[in-house]
Parts: sequence; C-alpha cells; structure tokens
Amino acid sequence: MPDRPRMLFSAFNEFVLSHHDQGLWAHPQSRQLELNSIDYWVDVAKLLESAHFDLLFFADVLAPYDIYKGSREPAILSGMQTPVNDPGELIPVLAYVTEHLGLVLTQNVLQEHPYAFARKISTLDHLSRGRIAWNIVTSFLPGAGRNLGYGGLPSHEERYARADDFLDVVFKLWEGSWEDDAVVRDLVNQRYVDPSKVHEINHVGPYYDVVGPHLSEPSPQRTPVLFQAAASNVGIDFAGRNAEILFTSLERSNAASNIAQLRAEAVRAGRRAEDVKIFGGLSFVLGSTEEEARRLDKEFRDAQSLEAAFAKYSAFWQFDLSLLKPTDRLSDILNGTVINNDVRKVLGFSPDVDWTLEEFVRWIATRRAVGTPEQIVEEIEAWQDLGVDGLNITYVISPGTFQDFADHLTPRLIERGLMRSEYAPGTLREKLFGAGPYLPESHPARAARAIFT
Amino acid sequence: MPDRPRMLFSAFNEFVLSHHDQGLWAHPQSRQLELNSIDYWVDVAKLLESAHFDLLFFADVLAPYDIYKGSREPAILSGMQTPVNDPGELIPVLAYVTEHLGLVLTQNVLQEHPYAFARKISTLDHLSRGRIAWNIVTSFLPGAGRNLGYGGLPSHEERYARADDFLDVVFKLWEGSWEDDAVVRDLVNQRYVDPSKVHEINHVGPYYDVVGPHLSEPSPQRTPVLFQAAASNVGIDFAGRNAEILFTSLERSNAASNIAQLRAEAVRAGRRAEDVKIFGGLSFVLGSTEEEARRLDKEFRDAQSLEAAFAKYSAFWQFDLSLLKPTDRLSDILNGTVINNDVRKVLGFSPDVDWTLEEFVRWIATRRAVGTPEQIVEEIEAWQDLGVDGLNITYVISPGTFQDFADHLTPRLIERGLMRSEYAPGTLREKLFGAGPYLPESHPARAARAIFT
Repeated sequence: MPDRPRMLFSAFNEFVLSHHDQGLWAHPQSRQLELNSIDYWVDVAKLLESAHFDLLFFADVLAPYDIYKGSREPAILSGMQTPVNDPGELIPVLAYVTEHLGLVLTQNVLQEHPYAFARKISTLDHLSRGRIAWNIVTSFLPGAGRNLGYGGLPSHEERYARADDFLDVVFKLWEGSWEDDAVVRDLVNQRYVDPSKVHEINHVGPYYDVVGPHLSEPSPQRTPVLFQAAASNVGIDFAGRNAEILFTSLERSNAASNIAQLRAEAVRAGRRAEDVKIFGGLSFVLGSTEEEARRLDKEFRDAQSLEAAFAKYSAFWQFDLSLLKPTDRLSDILNGTVINNDVRKVLGFSPDVDWTLEEFVRWIATRRAVGTPEQIVEEIEAWQDLGVDGLNITYVISPGTFQDFADHLTPRLIERGLMRSEYAPGTLREKLFGAGPYLPESHPARAARAIFT
Repeated sequence: MPDRPRMLFSAFNEFVLSHHDQGLWAHPQSRQLELNSIDYWVDVAKLLESAHFDLLFFADVLAPYDIYKGSREPAILSGMQTPVNDPGELIPVLAYVTEHLGLVLTQNVLQEHPYAFARKISTLDHLSRGRIAWNIVTSFLPGAGRNLGYGGLPSHEERYARADDFLDVVFKLWEGSWEDDAVVRDLVNQRYVDPSKVHEINHVGPYYDVVGPHLSEPSPQRTPVLFQAAASNVGIDFAGRNAEILFTSLERSNAASNIAQLRAEAVRAGRRAEDVKIFGGLSFVLGSTEEEARRLDKEFRDAQSLEAAFAKYSAFWQFDLSLLKPTDRLSDILNGTVINNDVRKVLGFSPDVDWTLEEFVRWIATRRAVGTPEQIVEEIEAWQDLGVDGLNITYVISPGTFQDFADHLTPRLIERGLMRSEYAPGTLREKLFGAGPYLPESHPARAARAIFT
C-alpha cells in the first residue's frame, strides 16, 4: 500500500571508465571497459528507464586530476575520470533509445561560447522532445583553465560573475528571442516564420556581447531544467536564484539545516521553496541477506584503488594529500599547520573517530548503504525523512549497481509510493514538477521574455 | 559490365528546414517540416546508406542571412538556413542507426575552443567507430562574428591565421598526445593507462595556449577525415596543406584547370596529388521520360521562392542585391559601378546570355541536371571525365531526391562501376582512400606525432 510521497532518482554517471569507485572497472561483472562504445551506454540508459529512474546525470571534467603528488599519473593510470569523452555527443543517442528518461548534461561556463551552447541545448531539447537538463558548473580544476585559454582557473568570484553573464545570454536566447507563435508553418504562402516575432537580444555584458537572434526555434522546454551542485556561499546564492534541482553532498547530522538554508536562498531570490528539488547522494551494495551484502561490500572495498582515491580527493579539495602521511591521525593533522581551512573543514566534519588519514580516505571513498533490499529502502526513506526530494545514485560497478536497483529496489520503491509505476507524460520539467513545460513565472529567467514587448 | 572507376557520393544537407531549394519544404512530398524530429533524420540517413552514399554532409551557419535589403526577414520568413540546429547533436544518432555511412560535421574555427572541439570530435569518432569527417570552415558571415564575441567577422587573413593555430592545437591533441599503446587495459594491476605514454602538448600559439593532455584516448581515425571547401587564394593554400576532401563549386568550362590547380597546391605542400579527393556539386530532377523530368523540374522551379534566392545569394556574395533592379541586364550591371569586383566575378562567369538579374538568380538557384536516370548517369560520367573524384548531391525536396537516387541512380551507378555494391570495411578514411585508418605520413599533421619522441 503506497504510504510515502514520491522521491526522484538520478543515476550519477560520467562518460568515463571509472567515476567514483576506482579500480572496480576491472571487476569481472563490470562492462566499464566498453566506455567508448555506444552499445554499452544504450544498455545503461535502457536499464535505467526500465528501472523508472527520473534522470541520467553526466558529470564532466576538462582536465585530469593532477594535484596529488603534483602529477596526473595516479589518476590517469587507473582511468579515473581521464580519459573523459564529451557527454554532449552521447546524450543525443540516449535520447533516441529512451522515451521518458531525463538526461542531464554537465557543462561549465568556461568551455563554450553561450551563443553556440544555447543552440546545442535547444537542439538536444528538440531531439529528446523536452527531456534535457543542464548542470551549470563553473569548473574547479586549474587544469581546465589552462586547457581552455584562461591561463589558470579564474577566481571563484570571477567565475560566478561570468556565469551570471553567461546565463543572461542563454536565458535571453531561450526565452526572449522567438515568441511562442513565431513559427507559422504557412504552406500556402511558403512562410515558415513570422519574422516580426523573432527578436535580436542585443546583449552587451561584462564577458559576452551577443546580437542574436537565437538560431533554433523554441524547443519543448525552451530553457532546459536547471541543475546545480551547491557548495560555496557564492555558489549557494547563484543556485538559489537559478537552480530547479540542487544536488548537494549532505551529512545526516546537518542535512535538515542545510536543506532549509538552500530553500531559504530560493525564497530570498523571489522564488517559491517548492520550486527547488534537493538531491542528496547515495551509494549502496545489497545482498539477499545482510551477511551476503557485507561480504560483497568487503570484496568491493578490497578491490578499491586507494591511490586513486587519494588522487581524487586531492583534486576535490585542491590540496595535495601526499604532503601528509597516510598514517597521520586526523587529530594531529587538524592541529597542525600543513592543511588550510578548507581542508580542515572536510577532514574535521566527522570527528567521532580519530582515524588515520588513510582510514579516513578509505572510509569516505567507500561509504555506502550495505544490506538487504529492505534495508536500503529504509535508508532511502530515512533520507526522505530528512527532507531530500531525490537521490543521485552512484554506481559501484556498472551496470551491475543499476541492475541491482532495477531488480530489487524499484519494485519495493513502487510498492511504498516512493517511485511511480509509470512515467508521467510530457517534458522532463512536467514529469518532475507536475506543472507546465516552461520555467515557472517566479524564475528570474522569465524576465528575459520582456524582449518580446 | 563495370567499365568506370568508382566515384564518391555525398548527400549535401544541413540541419534546417530549407537548404538550397527554397520554398520546396511546402511541397506535398517533402518531409522537411519534421526538421526538429530525430525520426526524420534517421530515415534520411538509413535511406542514404541503403543507396550506398559514402557521406552525409552537414553544412552549418551561425547567423541568419541578413544582407539582402539589410534584413534577415526574407531568409527567416522562408525558413532558409534559419532556424538551424546544431549538427553536432544529430550526427551521434545517425552514427548509431547506420553502419558504414560517413558523417561530415561542418564547424567553424570561431565557434568553439579547440581543446573542447578536439574532444568532441574524438568522442564522435569513437561512437561512430571511425566514420567522422570535419569540414573546416572559417565562417563568411559577419553576423556569426557578432554573435560569437568577435564584434564582426575578422579579416580573411586573420581567420585563416586563427585556423592555422586551431589546427596546430587539434592535430597535437589527436596525433601527438596519446601514443598508440598508451591504453594497456591491465586488469590484474587495475592499470588502464600507461601514464608515461600520455603527453601534454604545451601549445603556445598566437590565438591559443593549451597544456593538455588530450581528454579522450585515441579514436579509430585519431584525426577525422579533413574536408574543406576551397574558394579564395588563402583558402586554397590552406586546403592544399590540410584537406583530404575538397568540395568546390566547379563550372564545366574551367573544371579541369581548377582541379589541376587544387592538386598542385597539395603537391606544393609536400603531399601527393592523390591524397586529395575533389568533389563537385550536383542537383538533379529525374523522370521516367525526359518530358516527365522537364515537367517535374518546371513544377519545382515554379514553387521556388525567388525572394529567398535573392537573400541567399546576397549572403553568399556579401552584397545586397536589392541595390540592383531585378530587371537590370547583366551587361549593364557589369559595366556599372554599383557592384564590387568580387560580385563582378560571379555575375560575369557565364557571359553567353545577357540575362536580367532576376533571370540570372533564378537560373543559378535552380540549375540542375534534368532527364531520365540514364541521362543523369551520363551527366555524372561527364563530371568524372572532367576529373572530379566525387559529387556532393543537393536535394530539391527531402527525402524525395535521395529516394529517387536510391531507386533509379544507385543500381545504374553500380552497374557501371561508378558505385560499389558493398561498403568497404574499416573506418571512413579506409573506405575512401583504401589505405590505413590514420592520416598518411605525407600529411603535415603527422608532424604532431613528434611530441612522442
């Protein structure tokens, strides 16, 4: 008997060999070695749709992780997020082979000019019949800045100022360039468009000058569903103004207060609290008994590459963990002078156990829900009780983790009302929010429609 | 009995409602109104593969045509190349639904940073198993420059200088960053890559500074097949150095000398004359009798939008044809002072008939081979006799023109040896040139492999 409100489920992925659980690509059940093949990804997307996932999320990076030991070798050796192919070229195929799955493209605002980017997204939205979301990022890797002509990474403030200008351009193109009835399809007079309803945007900003008009006619959603990962204070302000889905790394201890803060930011920006869906993350290993699950989890932990995990977290925290000893205790590190305040914050957030650095990295790299399907569902319910609207599901091995989800979690989640037994009709935004295909009136981007008048 | 050498066939297309024959999207047999739908394009690509086409070529523009009458209205009204979606998002789907068809992406060097572009192409080459070609363009539309942050269009010389730097970057990434045996796939030691065989490129150029390494592992062709349209002298020098396929608008009267000049440019750049395949263009209308073909051609001509043709050629020639009267005779225009030398050249190339401007534009917009299938094949043979290696086939209506080709020309072309009855195995480069998947040693891009040593 359904007794729970619905939750949203996203598959956390990247167009890589190895995303989060390093080394497990070599597991006999993994198909991750097929990373360059369409067929593998088609199977993943179809599996996710059969499992009633709402979203398939593609992360992205534009440089190898190269902080740990001052080198990209530990990351690249284990195929961790390098090589990384272009998710923008994979998503159209996955749109073709699925009918309902939402597809989330991560693209940072340093990578491409907003005029060309806006057309890319409109094209994807047309081809997918309105199932595209954009995860707005500003990049955190200095290497990406060095590869894309910025010398290094622009400051946090400058990246967000650029992101604001970038959004102004794309919102004007998506919302304010073509009126709803600009395309007339008049066969008799061979008029496809009423040109008086297509407008230049004449944007002049600190970073971008764009005349327009937009190159594509309005797509089903116009603006894609706007996804964002919230972290810093500048990021939270930006997300409060713009994001429709916020993916944030939550700890149980502070989830409720963090969620309240994120919703308050949206309200502060003139939006409604319910205009933002908040996603946490979840990794899991399941078995038919708790013992089997624990045994499997241990097998996966033992296969995990610790060196790659050090490389990953060094990049995430932008601090070379090889400057510390793996055997150092957290208490000594936190009291010492080697780390900066940002790293002190992440190493100190769970002070219950005085781990060594190696133990801590191993814990953070492999923490997940482990148990029977019932126990994993209880874990999901616990997240819902803390106030999250959805979960981004990390795979341990692919597609095995998603197959487990489809076989053992989906039926139980449907039974309890946490998942729908059928997809709702319409665009991704309609499926997620239950209202129309376009951004709600309360979203600041709707102001771009003023170009019409 | 096959008695002819093989020719290459490309379908000339663009991700638009209306490419070359304006107004015919409204024809009852056209499916062009489905431009935003994947299914239409999937059908086109499958049809072309069933017709043994070598290539499906996507042109592209990044601004509406806006020279004629100083306005984009005449072009946009008839849906002529605006709206124009992103071909880079369509090609992956067409790669998925075909097995052998080569896919040509046009992208200009102003649009995207070469680091991100190189990954996009490598991804496409992986997903298509080596069937990607890149049509290198530098844009000819001032509007594109205004939309992409260049203010207007950089000068011809500056665009080609930028293109040289752009090619340096992408050649280094495709050819010189990952060695052939860099990917080791060592399951036992969880080593995917030998990091000592992945190299930074450390490019410092006049326009682009890029550290690297390349983000994707080597794709089947590494560098895509390089396509180019040759026009100006600077363009011819650039094409002679780089292009593997040259698409050029040839007149019968000077085809042989133009082809000789294009091949000579390649030789001057240290390459072999046979390293470059030269394509002309062909449009056709066929009927079971010559009379039927002429009747159909007249029907298509009568449906052609002349206003849109004026808008197109005004953009092509970057001269506002509304400054002349449609009833002016070419002889008067050529002797007058309104036109510049570039326009004098195009209006004066065929001086046999002293047309009015309107007659001339109508002629140039609708000239094509008209006749029975046998007569069209003879026309194709005539082009081969003039020295072209292939033809880029323009549709009159889509997919009707390509269906006619499949039904009536393909069998006859196979019979005469002009077309193969089966696709050759391997990558696009192997199918086209009959040698290996990579650029030949004589291509200047191969010098980028020196980073390895």
